[in-house]
Amino acid sequence: MQRKLVAVDWGTSSLRGALIGSEGVVLEKRAFPQGILQVAHGQFQHVFEQRFGDWMAADTLCLVSGMAGSRQGWREAPYCPCPSGFEDIAQHLQWIEKDRIGIVPGLSTWNDDTPDVMRGEEIQIFGALTSQHIHSAQFVLPGTHSKWAHVVDGKIKAFKTFMTGEFYALLSQHSILAKTCLPDAPLKKEVFIEGVMQSQKPGGLLHHAFSARSLALFEKLNPAQSSSYISGLLIGEEIKSAKDERSEKLENQAPLFILGNGQLTQRYSFAMKALGLPATALADEVTWTGIWALAQHLYPQDFTQNFTLS
Amino acid sequence: MQRKLVAVDWGTSSLRGALIGSEGVVLEKRAFPQGILQVAHGQFQHVFEQRFGDWMAADTLCLVSGMAGSRQGWREAPYCPCPSGFEDIAQHLQWIEKDRIGIVPGLSTWNDDTPDVMRGEEIQIFGALTSQHIHSAQFVLPGTHSKWAHVVDGKIKAFKTFMTGEFYALLSQHSILAKTCLPDAPLKKEVFIEGVMQSQKPGGLLHHAFSARSLALFEKLNPAQSSSYISGLLIGEEIKSAKDERSEKLENQAPLFILGNGQLTQRYSFAMKALGLPATALADEVTWTGIWALAQHLYPQDFTQNFTLS
Repeated sequence: MQRKLVAVDWGTSSLRGALIGSEGVVLEKRAFPQGILQVAHGQFQHVFEQRFGDWMAADTLCLVSGMAGSRQGWREAPYCPCPSGFEDIAQHLQWIEKDRIGIVPGLSTWNDDTPDVMRGEEIQIFGALTSQHIHSAQFVLPGTHSKWAHVVDGKIKAFKTFMTGEFYALLSQHSILAKTCLPDAPLKKEVFIEGVMQSQKPGGLLHHAFSARSLALFEKLNPAQSSSYISGLLIGEEIKSAKDERSEKLENQAPLFILGNGQLTQRYSFAMKALGLPATALADEVTWTGIWALAQHLYPQDFTQNFTLS
Repeated sequence: MQRKLVAVDWGTSSLRGALIGSEGVVLEKRAFPQGILQVAHGQFQHVFEQRFGDWMAADTLCLVSGMAGSRQGWREAPYCPCPSGFEDIAQHLQWIEKDRIGIVPGLSTWNDDTPDVMRGEEIQIFGALTSQHIHSAQFVLPGTHSKWAHVVDGKIKAFKTFMTGEFYALLSQHSILAKTCLPDAPLKKEVFIEGVMQSQKPGGLLHHAFSARSLALFEKLNPAQSSSYISGLLIGEEIKSAKDERSEKLENQAPLFILGNGQLTQRYSFAMKALGLPATALADEVTWTGIWALAQHLYPQDFTQNFTLS
């Protein structure tokens, strides 16, 4: 029997799904602004059926990654502790309906005494490992809460979260810097790189952020440039912290990949190039690749074809 | 002739004034929630007369420090570039009424190619130098935008701004951390110090901020503790950056003073002690001391008595 797969990525602020045919090709995609924060308690099953019910034939498998597995989501899927690989995730799926609708657990790790968590990024990382045919690498997943993850021998060994995207929203919309900033202005690459380089100087983020104010006071930064500068400061600060750590650990001299959407990935690529940290950007179809690979792992006889990028 | 002095500190969000008698003793103090952001264009003279007009006898001198001298204030008093001392400020007063109502200019400095600015803190620093009878020191002025300033031979040589207080407001009220944080909870010293120590570890602020989220998820930080932890992370990050720089410059091994209000000064004292950076806390009466000393400098024959703390 060859089955179809409904791959769902249910995040904090959005709900995305793909219907993947038994040949491993995406047949249809849907996206809704219906993240878990927009779904009332007890309504997850209802929303799922409303959005994807027509895709669910009797023998269709559905795997859901992301915040749907959090305490505030559809069903809590406890974190798998690092190091965790594909097998660990597969063994700890939370089944809404056995062998039919499963929730993929997220991962936890401890940096010294401090926990860190991810939900949804793990499946993207496994998707990237699959699509790149590699077992060890470092991954950056830019976003509201960026993740930097180390993968060794197919297992996510450790990772760190950076609140870069959220800090950008706070500073560009709610701080004193917002007075002289158009948060949605298009990227000015040169000004962005100035921000990246500023962030590498002594002083730290709390100090450098104020330079967006003082440069505006001295008419050296206009509102259309300010957003690029602040973005550069923050992405530069994130890369600086992660890079310092990378250079401390020889084991981390693995290839570096950026996983994410076009615009943000481009900014990280620019910044990393400017900082001498070469990285390869991969599109975020890796979510579907990862969920398909998980289905193959769970039911090898039902999912014999490899996933094919459309 | 002995004159009285009306010392005014007109900031972004508050207006404070002190009537100081010719003996150098504060006779009366007033404070209003009427910072420059709350005053309409062209209404500064009116608000001043409304609040302090009854203090202004024919021969009374008034000196106004703070944001009143900014472009959005009463009258722009261009920044004095560092190094600047008392003489530089005195020479560049902006007179609303000659020899009667003067606006104290702020300072600017350049860290590499990046400008930094202060308005109001310079007079507090000069007040502290006067009250402590010293000419060289390092000063920390905690606040929405904290300042760290180096004074050598009576001149402010350089300074840096840190957006620590503003970041605290953003994170504790507007970020994902706000969900599990009571921003006005009383200080829990132990948790505060945990935040301070966390901020010294590798990872940087963008990463450490997320630990307030993950510790809450793992039930290791409750909402009444979270505000202390976040405050510790931020103040610790500020001190770390400033301390790294201090240790790089031998000339900065001058005594370290904290100038500010009680609660915040206490937090900085706790953090600096935990980080092995001893500092002496001074109350913010230094504003009146500084403005009085400036009056003495301008009109030595009219202000013969030294300022006396009440």
